[in-house]
Amino acid sequence: MNKPKILVLGAGYGGIMTTVNLQKMLGRDDAQITLVNKHNYHYQTTWLHENAAGTLHHDNTRIPIDEVINKNKVNFIVDTVKEIKHEDKTVVLEGGDTLTYDYLVVGLGFEPATFGIPGIKEHAFSITSINAARKIKAHIEYMFATYSASKEKRDELLTFIVGGAGFTGIEFLGELANRVPELCKEYDVPREKVRIICVEAGPGALPGFDPELVEYAVNLLERKGVEFKIGTAIKEVQEDGVVLSKGEDMEEVKSGTIVWSAGVQGSPVCEAADIGAMRGRVKVNADMRAPGHDDIFVVGDCALIINEEIDRPYPPTAQIAMQQGVIVAKNIKALINGENTKTFKPDIKGTVASLGEGEAIGLVFGRKYFGGTASFLKKMIDNRYLFLLGGIGLVLKKGKLKFF
Amino acid sequence: MNKPKILVLGAGYGGIMTTVNLQKMLGRDDAQITLVNKHNYHYQTTWLHENAAGTLHHDNTRIPIDEVINKNKVNFIVDTVKEIKHEDKTVVLEGGDTLTYDYLVVGLGFEPATFGIPGIKEHAFSITSINAARKIKAHIEYMFATYSASKEKRDELLTFIVGGAGFTGIEFLGELANRVPELCKEYDVPREKVRIICVEAGPGALPGFDPELVEYAVNLLERKGVEFKIGTAIKEVQEDGVVLSKGEDMEEVKSGTIVWSAGVQGSPVCEAADIGAMRGRVKVNADMRAPGHDDIFVVGDCALIINEEIDRPYPPTAQIAMQQGVIVAKNIKALINGENTKTFKPDIKGTVASLGEGEAIGLVFGRKYFGGTASFLKKMIDNRYLFLLGGIGLVLKKGKLKFF
Repeated sequence: MNKPKILVLGAGYGGIMTTVNLQKMLGRDDAQITLVNKHNYHYQTTWLHENAAGTLHHDNTRIPIDEVINKNKVNFIVDTVKEIKHEDKTVVLEGGDTLTYDYLVVGLGFEPATFGIPGIKEHAFSITSINAARKIKAHIEYMFATYSASKEKRDELLTFIVGGAGFTGIEFLGELANRVPELCKEYDVPREKVRIICVEAGPGALPGFDPELVEYAVNLLERKGVEFKIGTAIKEVQEDGVVLSKGEDMEEVKSGTIVWSAGVQGSPVCEAADIGAMRGRVKVNADMRAPGHDDIFVVGDCALIINEEIDRPYPPTAQIAMQQGVIVAKNIKALINGENTKTFKPDIKGTVASLGEGEAIGLVFGRKYFGGTASFLKKMIDNRYLFLLGGIGLVLKKGKLKFF
Repeated sequence: MNKPKILVLGAGYGGIMTTVNLQKMLGRDDAQITLVNKHNYHYQTTWLHENAAGTLHHDNTRIPIDEVINKNKVNFIVDTVKEIKHEDKTVVLEGGDTLTYDYLVVGLGFEPATFGIPGIKEHAFSITSINAARKIKAHIEYMFATYSASKEKRDELLTFIVGGAGFTGIEFLGELANRVPELCKEYDVPREKVRIICVEAGPGALPGFDPELVEYAVNLLERKGVEFKIGTAIKEVQEDGVVLSKGEDMEEVKSGTIVWSAGVQGSPVCEAADIGAMRGRVKVNADMRAPGHDDIFVVGDCALIINEEIDRPYPPTAQIAMQQGVIVAKNIKALINGENTKTFKPDIKGTVASLGEGEAIGLVFGRKYFGGTASFLKKMIDNRYLFLLGGIGLVLKKGKLKFF
């Protein structure tokens, strides 16, 4: 008797939660579960902005996959997915292997959306992975070191531009504003030499968030020295700065560091798979399967689901990806057992944006929170995720346990 | 009654020891002492290679000048010396001030000697100051971070070339070889990807040092993964590597990091002062005065003194600069009192080269030392200097007290 083969691509929030739930729900004889991931670790994408600013070490953000999967039940392969061939029911890896599946889970994550703005790919950083965050951290330090050691003292070395005042941009700004005084001390740089500029094309920061909370966040960041340029578009990113436009006005700002965080799209491998993706995202059926592909589930940033109350897509958040992982595991089990699949319905408990150590804003169960309380809630949310992923042991090992 | 004005330029080993001894020997009414230095701190040039490799924090290497001078006796100015006008007995600072003197002490330090090799100034690092060392440290980290985050994995990012196997080069190699495994761990880089190459044009490492000790040092560094290219000249430093020649053979080695440590010369301000300097060095009289300039003393890397036993110049070491500071202070006091100046005679107690934590080679009072014993001696020498400069308090604050 052949066991059904379940192949999970990607160990982000969606893929790893699918895998961990599958290994709980299924016995060793029920299915063969294989997980493929680029690295031998899972990381918490929602903490990467702290690694990038240098306020948290990246080892706190990543978790060896061996620590959360049961190797007796899950076959784990470290490789990069090159191509999904749904007609052959195979997946080709960059290392050369070809894997077959009966059920496929696509959780290949995101890449920055550049909206066609020239120069972003070449000259801007994006907070996309442990490697990328670590490079941003080292780059920022190198800018301070270079400024200190140079005779001419070019101010643009100390100008840091963040493109986008969405969730990631705002959270990164909070950490960076906290980190800058430390860097000034370390490299003997006067604080007033450093500029942190946030450029946002839309009419305000954190679109869709409660206005009172947004105001609190913007005021707090401004007090920490962040300059906001709202309603201002980045027209081009150059090697040594950006070209901005606000209405008719054009402006060039020289900068050694541009961090682009104005939007994400799904994985290009998902886009190329011919399973109905637009910008790397598949508008999935109610049970998280790709339309017309009964054996392919899509989770996380590669999945598009619509919030029918407002007829707009849900934002691609960790919270939703985790919940998708649970339902996808259940639905695969149902298919194996010949049962009906269930509909995925996000259960949005709330949203909290951190603004640097001890500061945050949040809307949780319909209530607004500010400052220390919101920051506490954020840490509880982070710890809850670790608990769902790896139990109390993982919370103790990687959790944010210094609450106040 | 006018007090004689003593002006000390530079707070390196020579300048700071002159100043500290002057303030001990002279009363407040005997003279007006002024010290000018680029930074508000003195640093131990002999420790900079550790800061550059990242094995020691730069704050351990620098000492606020306020902590070792008596502000009641010494007027301290933070500024950069622009020009010495000996005919007017004045010194012009970059900030715009002009200072007058009756006695001048020139201790303006060194700059890298490039021997006309193209590209060194533009593309190579040199371990010349706290700022330069800190930049090298940040640059090395940035190379590891960039390698990790890149898809193409260009090996030259992890190739580190040290030009020169003299004292500084060897000591830096020792620290770098210790630091590399830590960086590999931090940035998830396999150790075998990293190359550390030392290029030396002469016939061997550490010219003039005892051959048995040199062999010990080279073997130890090779075991730590350093590749030596002896009898090999750097013909050119380019943006992305070096061109080497050995006899007829030419070779290009790609590298993101070239540290030039093959020689130093005296300060260009000293060179321009028309006080008899060649390559920034003044061949001083027996009492450390510039020939033909009875009011100008020269110390440290700007002073050239001949070892008559071998009819060659003494190397410009911290040990000699410190001893010069003592005799120059005594001789200035003698001149003020109408007494005869004394002849400077270096008292070479020994030389120890560190090879990374816990390892060194040394020749002290004519005896050879290796490994841990030599490393211990090195730390004692460092601590003795701190004691001479700022007493036991400074030893406890900045000393190397972890001996084993």
